Amino acid sequence: MAVVSRLSVNGDRLMGWIDRLARIGRLPNGDICRLAFTPEDVQARYQVQQWMMEAGMTVANDAAGNIIGTYPGSEAHAPALATGSHIDTVPSGGAYDGVLGVLAGIEVVKTLQEQKQRLQHPLQVIVFTDEESSMVGARALAGMVPRSPTDLKLRDGLNIETCLESVGGDWHTISTAQCTRDQIAAFVELHVEQGAVLEQTAKTIGVVQGVVGMRRSIVTIRGQANHAGTTPMDMRQDALLAAAQIVLRVRDIALDTPNAPVATVGYLTVAPNAANIVPGEVVLTVDMRDLSPIGLASMQARLEEALQAIAATTHTDISIEPLLDVAPSPAAERIQQTIAAVCEALQLSHRTMPSRAGHDAMEMGRITDMGMIFVPSQMGLSHSGHEYTPPEDCIRGANVLLHTLLRLDALYA
Amino acid sequence: MAVVSRLSVNGDRLMGWIDRLARIGRLPNGDICRLAFTPEDVQARYQVQQWMMEAGMTVANDAAGNIIGTYPGSEAHAPALATGSHIDTVPSGGAYDGVLGVLAGIEVVKTLQEQKQRLQHPLQVIVFTDEESSMVGARALAGMVPRSPTDLKLRDGLNIETCLESVGGDWHTISTAQCTRDQIAAFVELHVEQGAVLEQTAKTIGVVQGVVGMRRSIVTIRGQANHAGTTPMDMRQDALLAAAQIVLRVRDIALDTPNAPVATVGYLTVAPNAANIVPGEVVLTVDMRDLSPIGLASMQARLEEALQAIAATTHTDISIEPLLDVAPSPAAERIQQTIAAVCEALQLSHRTMPSRAGHDAMEMGRITDMGMIFVPSQMGLSHSGHEYTPPEDCIRGANVLLHTLLRLDALYA
Repeated sequence: MAVVSRLSVNGDRLMGWIDRLARIGRLPNGDICRLAFTPEDVQARYQVQQWMMEAGMTVANDAAGNIIGTYPGSEAHAPALATGSHIDTVPSGGAYDGVLGVLAGIEVVKTLQEQKQRLQHPLQVIVFTDEESSMVGARALAGMVPRSPTDLKLRDGLNIETCLESVGGDWHTISTAQCTRDQIAAFVELHVEQGAVLEQTAKTIGVVQGVVGMRRSIVTIRGQANHAGTTPMDMRQDALLAAAQIVLRVRDIALDTPNAPVATVGYLTVAPNAANIVPGEVVLTVDMRDLSPIGLASMQARLEEALQAIAATTHTDISIEPLLDVAPSPAAERIQQTIAAVCEALQLSHRTMPSRAGHDAMEMGRITDMGMIFVPSQMGLSHSGHEYTPPEDCIRGANVLLHTLLRLDALYA
Repeated sequence: MAVVSRLSVNGDRLMGWIDRLARIGRLPNGDICRLAFTPEDVQARYQVQQWMMEAGMTVANDAAGNIIGTYPGSEAHAPALATGSHIDTVPSGGAYDGVLGVLAGIEVVKTLQEQKQRLQHPLQVIVFTDEESSMVGARALAGMVPRSPTDLKLRDGLNIETCLESVGGDWHTISTAQCTRDQIAAFVELHVEQGAVLEQTAKTIGVVQGVVGMRRSIVTIRGQANHAGTTPMDMRQDALLAAAQIVLRVRDIALDTPNAPVATVGYLTVAPNAANIVPGEVVLTVDMRDLSPIGLASMQARLEEALQAIAATTHTDISIEPLLDVAPSPAAERIQQTIAAVCEALQLSHRTMPSRAGHDAMEMGRITDMGMIFVPSQMGLSHSGHEYTPPEDCIRGANVLLHTLLRLDALYA
């Protein structure tokens, strides 16, 4: 343990790499646009592969275009310990989302290489394909790729066959990308929080309990459009009045459910939407996220019950259709405990918390033990050129990743 | 009294006229499109002037393009008793809105002419210009035309000078259209209810207490757009959550105010309006209508107080800007009493009620004694080709108008 705690990544090198990668796809306004499958994505992949090779890794592409860098272990047939994340961005992204996890993984290997140290397990750094849209890379590794390409959420106008070809993958053999626990014993992802919980609670490291599941529904309320002057209050079938009650009920359902789930009405449109007409129809979305499948099911049931009651009192018809149903992906208890123990050893303040955004680790958790390490996002900003995590936090996160992998190497022996 | 109650309009002739006018501007789907200042409007004006002249009236146009038909009275210098309404429609209008009041007025004169009967007062039937949009006709008679043409709510692309020219008016001398109590002693308008109160309460005639005033405001709520997954419920500044509370509060303010005012949030937009983003901004309108100026002011004060409280609890900024402020226009007590007495004499069920839609009578009430007679609108429908008032109700309304004018002739002697 004493040996372990002295080992530390090269923070300057890590921050230099983050800076270098941020130049690829940088827009005049400072945002970074490095969409998956574009020339910028390919350029960044090429750069990352160079760094992997320089750190002593062998580099391979799977059929989903995932880049898998492998730093051999001392035991020939042991399954891998894996880390990694993504290097694609949203159309106006920042420098840290995904990138930190990939480059910290390479930095961990580089540190081990400099120390001429090997783990028992092979150590893999995975760059997942298109995390920001289809998640096709992580889903392929987890064997969760939909059969029909139309069920993949690709950006408009893209064709998955062409896309995968451009990054060295192959749609027709994508099922070969699937891994099992026998190949990857554990996966740990370092990521910026993309929220303000660590900052607001003054903690350095988030020990992620799992990635929340999501139930997203679309609700349609049909009332009766009518003259806002001549229709007395008690003769109205006001769709917006029903919608307002739903918005408040959705919040209450989240507040009344244990373990701080979130629930949001983010989209709402009114028809005919004129100042002098009682609203006849409202369409809105309800997005609910929780770490517990039971919590999610209970929130959904309470929502549907509330819709019935609101329909009755407002004299409207309310229907609900599912849009998305993603199961929660819990982090392995022993990985959570290991991360927490590392934080104690490194004297870093930490807190357990769910990840309420989707991540590659969510899919990896479906096939093997998974864990995530969060570092603070300044003001919770993400998916923005203003996304920022101070260097000291990036470096602390990389050191937690290093020592977590070292401890898991012993734990999974 | 016995003489009066035997006199009755010619219902078949009235309904024939309504049918004839409905052919002008009739669309293939049955709606009527007879927008002010269009060739259809001019054609209908020409037709109505013919009927006026055939009923023994002299016809004149004022500077606002209002058509004023005058049936001379027996006293040379008496002020007029006036009735009338409008014959323009909304883009997809019906056959009764406005038209009934104009044609029933002419039918009243025609009935008197056939009986060789004159009132002491001259009897005027006024066709007001562009009731459905600018209300420039009634506003000119009331001396309420705004100085700047840009403050007139004309349909897009229209120019008021050209418009008025096309109907025999003149923008530059429009102030000459203004009348006083010395010229028009009282004005009574027959109109379809455009609401369902009479139908639902099974009454034949509405005795209008006045035209409600209106306060319309636009409310802007600024919160903070944020990730719907990573932002905990207690760190949100959700603009839609604030808006939902405003929508419910607006309803409660109407319900808690005496004499059944109405209040409506008819327009509401959300930004950025995406299922996975906590709403950052909402813009909505609040439209409140009441017969009492005190009631209106009190509702507005309670709204502003509520906005402050909601801003504080939801951590949002809420601002409110006035859009419209129209004073209520009460009906003269003695005209209301006269209409009610006529209903009793004709054995027609009736109820007092406010008019919550704007009418030409609203402006006339600002310069002279005003009253309105409502007849039922089937299912409350209006501004639609499906607008319908059964012939017996149209004819009853015309008879109430006839006998009201006869009684007012004595009352205002």
